[in-house]
Amino acid sequence: MSKITPAEFEAIAKHRVPIVGYLGIRIEEIGHGTATARAPYREEFLRPGGTVAGPVLMALADFAMYAAVLSRIGKVELAVTTNLNINFLRRPGRKDVLASARLIKLGKRLAVGQVDLFSDGEDDLIAHVTSTYSIPPL
Amino acid sequence: MSKITPAEFEAIAKHRVPIVGYLGIRIEEIGHGTATARAPYREEFLRPGGTVAGPVLMALADFAMYAAVLSRIGKVELAVTTNLNINFLRRPGRKDVLASARLIKLGKRLAVGQVDLFSDGEDDLIAHVTSTYSIPPL
Amino acid sequence: MSKITPAEFEAIAKHRVPIVGYLGIRIEEIGHGTATARAPYREEFLRPGGTVAGPVLMALADFAMYAAVLSRIGKVELAVTTNLNINFLRRPGRKDVLASARLIKLGKRLAVGQVDLFSDGEDDLIAHVTSTYSIPPL
Amino acid sequence: MSKITPAEFEAIAKHRVPIVGYLGIRIEEIGHGTATARAPYREEFLRPGGTVAGPVLMALADFAMYAAVLSRIGKVELAVTTNLNINFLRRPGRKDVLASARLIKLGKRLAVGQVDLFSDGEDDLIAHVTSTYSIPPL
Repeated sequence: MSKITPAEFEAIAKHRVPIVGYLGIRIEEIGHGTATARAPYREEFLRPGGTVAGPVLMALADFAMYAAVLSRIGKVELAVTTNLNINFLRRPGRKDVLASARLIKLGKRLAVGQVDLFSDGEDDLIAHVTSTYSIPPL
Repeated sequence: MSKITPAEFEAIAKHRVPIVGYLGIRIEEIGHGTATARAPYREEFLRPGGTVAGPVLMALADFAMYAAVLSRIGKVELAVTTNLNINFLRRPGRKDVLASARLIKLGKRLAVGQVDLFSDGEDDLIAHVTSTYSIPPL
Repeated sequence: MSKITPAEFEAIAKHRVPIVGYLGIRIEEIGHGTATARAPYREEFLRPGGTVAGPVLMALADFAMYAAVLSRIGKVELAVTTNLNINFLRRPGRKDVLASARLIKLGKRLAVGQVDLFSDGEDDLIAHVTSTYSIPPL
Repeated sequence: MSKITPAEFEAIAKHRVPIVGYLGIRIEEIGHGTATARAPYREEFLRPGGTVAGPVLMALADFAMYAAVLSRIGKVELAVTTNLNINFLRRPGRKDVLASARLIKLGKRLAVGQVDLFSDGEDDLIAHVTSTYSIPPL
């Protein structure tokens, strides 16, 4: 079970991380060390080739990881990304993008997870992320 | 010497990558396999801790790399990021962020570079990026 | 089905990549874009903390990916790693290490995969790798 | 100035990290947050294409980083790699490989550095590494 509800997390996002609202990103589901986020399609996200720009995917993945981390440690807003590695695999079409994050390690000081990114309704991964968050001392 | 002028690059950015204009990112300098980009400070970039959100730094770094790549291969808009790795080192303050990109390899198919990120007027790195672009066949 | 048999792959490894034999690494299984490799435990692999040294895990993961790539493209020895990212998650004990690789993208020029590393007989990941191979033009 | 001498570091390497001796890797210089390591050329390091195998480069880079970290924190053997990202840039020839590591951040809990890898006597980078070490609580 998550230590934070989607509504609590949306409140953090809305009031404390305006860039996320700015991009229209929202959380879909938060589990026990898992979370799914969505970036509803906007024409402003496109880059040459008619595909969604990389920074949108990176922002979405980072946000999904933040939710997955807080699902385990509770409302610790000051958890911060220390490393993010993304491989872009296929060019996403003109569709919503979904990011599904899952922790693969939760230590006292570091949380590591991976994030799969998909175009809505499609099966093939468009990008794959691994990311580390630093958890502040209590 | 660059195969693309800052003005030509800004035109691509403005008309073809709206997310960049959306974030207010602009190019400062383009050299021979190098480029510097700036994200002028906005309150909307903050995240908990009073620091600039990671996705802003990632967008800025990716954009600086795009300029560094095009400085060598010319106006090849379809060059795309295949991998980006970022280490967040220090929390940036409420200042403009600068990203300085430099190619470390330019092959026929792949370009690899590194990007140093700083807060304006400060010496310590706030983040370090390595990134690979795929160059489309001519 | 794999385009290369474990025996064919072992022959490449034995005759063409001596470092692998040097470390005692061997292939366990090759599927369709998947492969599992094993590093039988040796005292020489230890580092301070009584744990298996990182370079052993990196060599093992890289080798498993090589097999996964060749399982799809056949005996293309000149496929080479262009990027490898590893997160070390838990300290492996004094046991064999297993690496399970799986391609997540196979393009004409690049193959991307992930590798999960485990201590033999245990469930928790000890390390997670993403890696890109460059496929030479035919 | 370094908090550890090359001789002290070589003693750790020799007695505590046998894989390093196994590969013939040795330290050349240790500074203040910097270190250079060398892998003297051996035929056993080759892989198809007549080039030095990736795992040798990764082991060398990791070892150089270990020395750079200990140069700042002293003889803390239990410092361990948490993340390593390598981009392979050019195929090294049949020569010694040199790895030059430099810390770009030293915090209480994490040290981050980059490592440039060269073939002995050549100017072009053959690989570039960024890496994070976790520093154990005192």
